[in-house]
Amino acid sequence: MARQKVVVTRQLIDEAQELLDAKKDDLEIVQWKSEKPCDRSWLLENAKGATGILVMLSDQVNEELLQAAGDQLKVIASFSVGTDHVDRDALKKRNIRLGYTPTCLTDAVADLTVLLILMAQRRGGEAMAKVINGEWPQMPWHPLLMTGPSIRGATVGFLGFGRISQASLQRLLPFGIKRAIYLTSKPGQPVKEDHFGLIKSAGIPIEPAKSADELASESDVVVVGCALTPSTKHLVSTDFFKKMKKLAVIVNIARGPIIDTNALIKALDEGQIFGAGLDVIENEPNIQADHPILKQPRCVLLPHVGSATIETREQMATESVKNLLAGLTGDAMVNELEL
Amino acid sequence: MARQKVVVTRQLIDEAQELLDAKKDDLEIVQWKSEKPCDRSWLLENAKGATGILVMLSDQVNEELLQAAGDQLKVIASFSVGTDHVDRDALKKRNIRLGYTPTCLTDAVADLTVLLILMAQRRGGEAMAKVINGEWPQMPWHPLLMTGPSIRGATVGFLGFGRISQASLQRLLPFGIKRAIYLTSKPGQPVKEDHFGLIKSAGIPIEPAKSADELASESDVVVVGCALTPSTKHLVSTDFFKKMKKLAVIVNIARGPIIDTNALIKALDEGQIFGAGLDVIENEPNIQADHPILKQPRCVLLPHVGSATIETREQMATESVKNLLAGLTGDAMVNELEL
Repeated sequence: MARQKVVVTRQLIDEAQELLDAKKDDLEIVQWKSEKPCDRSWLLENAKGATGILVMLSDQVNEELLQAAGDQLKVIASFSVGTDHVDRDALKKRNIRLGYTPTCLTDAVADLTVLLILMAQRRGGEAMAKVINGEWPQMPWHPLLMTGPSIRGATVGFLGFGRISQASLQRLLPFGIKRAIYLTSKPGQPVKEDHFGLIKSAGIPIEPAKSADELASESDVVVVGCALTPSTKHLVSTDFFKKMKKLAVIVNIARGPIIDTNALIKALDEGQIFGAGLDVIENEPNIQADHPILKQPRCVLLPHVGSATIETREQMATESVKNLLAGLTGDAMVNELEL
Repeated sequence: MARQKVVVTRQLIDEAQELLDAKKDDLEIVQWKSEKPCDRSWLLENAKGATGILVMLSDQVNEELLQAAGDQLKVIASFSVGTDHVDRDALKKRNIRLGYTPTCLTDAVADLTVLLILMAQRRGGEAMAKVINGEWPQMPWHPLLMTGPSIRGATVGFLGFGRISQASLQRLLPFGIKRAIYLTSKPGQPVKEDHFGLIKSAGIPIEPAKSADELASESDVVVVGCALTPSTKHLVSTDFFKKMKKLAVIVNIARGPIIDTNALIKALDEGQIFGAGLDVIENEPNIQADHPILKQPRCVLLPHVGSATIETREQMATESVKNLLAGLTGDAMVNELEL
């Protein structure tokens, strides 16, 4: 029997590459051996005859690619959490399976949530800028110089209370927070999944909010951790900011469009809130150096690095290879998307 | 009986000012009502006849001031943790009591320790700079883009294991660290004070290191949290960095000179360590914009804001007033320095 052909559109990381290389006697492996995105023409040319293709977010999986590959294609293994780059209907009608890597991000994103909360409260961006600009020698000390609110005693409000929000809350407990509230698609109702057993054992009240208004007005820290849907787009807008406390901060580790950027800029300008920490923003990555959010000293903006730990990316790569191999043999994947 | 005179060298914050104002029928209160440091000439002139003086770090308490005040002076209440600005011998020979505010910093500094660890691991300074410089639109995604080490599974090594180090460790536990080690002035010996009951109950090993070498070579995160003494000056130097892991980060929330800055720059240049987060540095605050540490993308430098929370400063102000009043009446202070 002829060896099955697989195409891999990127050089992989240590363990994942080893896992793939271990199959080189059994499989014909065609790989784009670079850290840069592979050329579309290379992919279309090499896909021909492939049984499986391991793709990155940057590779469009559409009719064009599937036709170039041919009818023997059994599996697409995507190295990604999202699958917007994949035409799922086109896979479904051909009975091609789709693997992806949604699970291993929790720690990395929850860690970044804590980082952004502390940066917003402690005015980290403003403080770093003063040092970088050579202003430190001329900062005359006074009792409230560069002070921000403390996290001890804070009420932390979560928009969305899934695994990442709960993992963030778990990390915040020893900082001495007083209470957690959360808003889900079912306001006022207790969340079903208590991923880390916190609701029973955290030692502070963890309660559903009845409305976005209630969450905005009672929180000292707001964490945006919900999915982007038509009903969460611009959920955080001028009305929301007006109800927030003047010493409160907001953090977004979910999706940019949940916060109305213009409303955020206005809230910061007018002192309606104390600060913000964003890993995501509307229209990312097209944020030019003259974007008005970058003129806000109390806003820290990171370039969507929520999942960017070495461990997470290694795990995603390894899972992608496992999904690819499982697709070839018809075995269960680590994570398969129902089409 | 004539009212006692007190001099206060700064406008105070809410509760502290109220506490002082509440005594205005009993005391003659002379106050520099500004957020800027008071003029020396104003202080020397107004000190005359004072029984108590509440000073800031920026006010030198020396023979000149004590002589200007006169023999009735009973108490100096300093709004500060350090007392380098006070001539303690001069107070002692006149039996003047010295109050200060060393205790209320723990939370604020421990919070900042976590912030700096995460900034160093997750390349926060580098990531923010890319966004600010307008580089985000041109960052081609690849699996290891902007990745750093994860804190889960880390061994955290503390140079100095007092209250602030232990409070930092307490905050790090739910991030999934694997082990803590510490070095004190008695290497290899268990620390005496377990301020938060962690050694018994943390659920991970917390052990004394036998040497700085052992701590450097086994830690994924090094926290500098010891006092500055002749034996800790440049304790972290080239030898120390050479023994550190290439993916390890170092954080200094104690005193600048414990780390040899030139050795740190060399270690970062040569990739001996992954990153650094500093709230303090040698020769601070005289860090000009062309200082070589500011050219290190993997080093985050804050302008000594460890205690800069509103709550901490309010508490320091209130304690200063309490110390001042206790000095007038001969009562116990919140914190009095033995002279």
